[in-house]
Amino acid sequence: MIIVGGPAANNIDLEIAKLINAPSVTLEYKKFPDGESYIRYPVEEVDISGETVVVVQSLYPPQDKHFLELLLALSTAKDLGAKEVIAVVPYLAYARQDKRFRRGEAISVNVVLKAIESAGADRFITIDIHKEKSLEVLSIPHENLTAMRELAKYLLKRNYKNPVILAPDKGAIGHAKEVAKILGTEYDYIVKVRDRKTGEVRAEAKSLDVEGSTVIIVDDIISTGGTMALAAKCSLALGARAVIAVCTHALLVNNALTRLKESGISEIIATNTVPSPVSRISVANVLAEYLRRIL
Amino acid sequence: MIIVGGPAANNIDLEIAKLINAPSVTLEYKKFPDGESYIRYPVEEVDISGETVVVVQSLYPPQDKHFLELLLALSTAKDLGAKEVIAVVPYLAYARQDKRFRRGEAISVNVVLKAIESAGADRFITIDIHKEKSLEVLSIPHENLTAMRELAKYLLKRNYKNPVILAPDKGAIGHAKEVAKILGTEYDYIVKVRDRKTGEVRAEAKSLDVEGSTVIIVDDIISTGGTMALAAKCSLALGARAVIAVCTHALLVNNALTRLKESGISEIIATNTVPSPVSRISVANVLAEYLRRIL
Repeated sequence: MIIVGGPAANNIDLEIAKLINAPSVTLEYKKFPDGESYIRYPVEEVDISGETVVVVQSLYPPQDKHFLELLLALSTAKDLGAKEVIAVVPYLAYARQDKRFRRGEAISVNVVLKAIESAGADRFITIDIHKEKSLEVLSIPHENLTAMRELAKYLLKRNYKNPVILAPDKGAIGHAKEVAKILGTEYDYIVKVRDRKTGEVRAEAKSLDVEGSTVIIVDDIISTGGTMALAAKCSLALGARAVIAVCTHALLVNNALTRLKESGISEIIATNTVPSPVSRISVANVLAEYLRRIL
Repeated sequence: MIIVGGPAANNIDLEIAKLINAPSVTLEYKKFPDGESYIRYPVEEVDISGETVVVVQSLYPPQDKHFLELLLALSTAKDLGAKEVIAVVPYLAYARQDKRFRRGEAISVNVVLKAIESAGADRFITIDIHKEKSLEVLSIPHENLTAMRELAKYLLKRNYKNPVILAPDKGAIGHAKEVAKILGTEYDYIVKVRDRKTGEVRAEAKSLDVEGSTVIIVDDIISTGGTMALAAKCSLALGARAVIAVCTHALLVNNALTRLKESGISEIIATNTVPSPVSRISVANVLAEYLRRIL
């Protein structure tokens, strides 16, 4: 098994290689003056023919560029004679466009996944995809791993006082439940309610009383941070002692970080599937464990 | 037949629709805050089910974004029940990475073409692809049309004095020959020679004497414009009365336009496969003619 790092591997490739004691190689990469990407396997360093090749490439922004690089890397691995090509995509872009919210829309995640398969992937691995069901479009073996245990382990060490875990909405309760189990705490999900008199929208725990608690909001992804910021403000207004934001994929678009801090959130904790100032937990362990199992 | 304009159709879709008197529809497009593209067929305007759908999307920069939008558009046309999906890609990005110049390299054009086919294209049409042979990777019907006749017709009207046509290198002689035939002029290709004494590199016509001629340099693409600029300088030094640069795809990266003008080129003429200040000839005629034939 050879671990191949694409231009958006964010060093996860090197960590995995170390953990499973496999050789690794970093793809040569350049950008032509017109903006076209170029990748090359440094074949003088390592011969991938006949090998199981694990291509690590995350799809954080600029996601279309990283997507094309991934296709180039997968296809070229096949061309160069790899026996099996495993696509490891820690953050899968376009995962939230997973159905036709309106008639006529592209189901973007299907298109991205099918292109990855067509380019030469024999197996697909990602982490905390928005909806696990999206992977069913693939006809190759696939796995959605979770970083929630790694995040929970980190939270455990922090020894927060009276922690409670909240999901930002009912659909995302799974992650909150998983983290709560490890921390041995209660969990709930957030509902948005509009005040009949003032028209103001509040975001509060469905049934839990958060007074005196350290509220830990857990989600798969933080994009603009809007819901998180609102939930934080409301929790603090209800007497929470502190609010912590936890996610796998810290996209943090525009001024999300400022927005979250201004809402009173005291800590933001994320993994390195997307590089960001708060991406302090590595997903390499989770991936290495899985690769070791299928080796 | 319904003509569908993608976000990078550069209005060629509307012109084609008018020329062949077919209904047309423009895809709804937006960009999410994190940079993800979104496309939608306005199904309330036109029902594409059971129809031959022609998706027009060029792949000029940002090429990776336009590429993903193309895949979304093709795949969604299929989803929505189109009988046949024709991909019309006036400028095909990545066409110059058409072989392994060094071992281990991605053959990017193959990956791009195969992804277009896999996304749902039943037929592929492009214009003046860098190497026609690249299309052989497709298993769907495909066509490489040329804009050279349109460009030549425009040149004819300009009535240049003593025109001669030059290709920027031996491999690109085909386009020069085609234009020369229509203009009824001589043609040649440019060779680069290094002066043994000074080390200076000159770019000159292989055998033609350009003194007193209007030199028209014809290429499929102008990217940085380096070769064109050098050839223009040398032609003028050898007594050419003027130098005109002609191409299908005016990428004009960085300061190519300034560079070309500073080299003494008096006119730059290109088609609208790539939007630019010199893209004055439309390829809609060429495409419409072809579509009419296969209708």
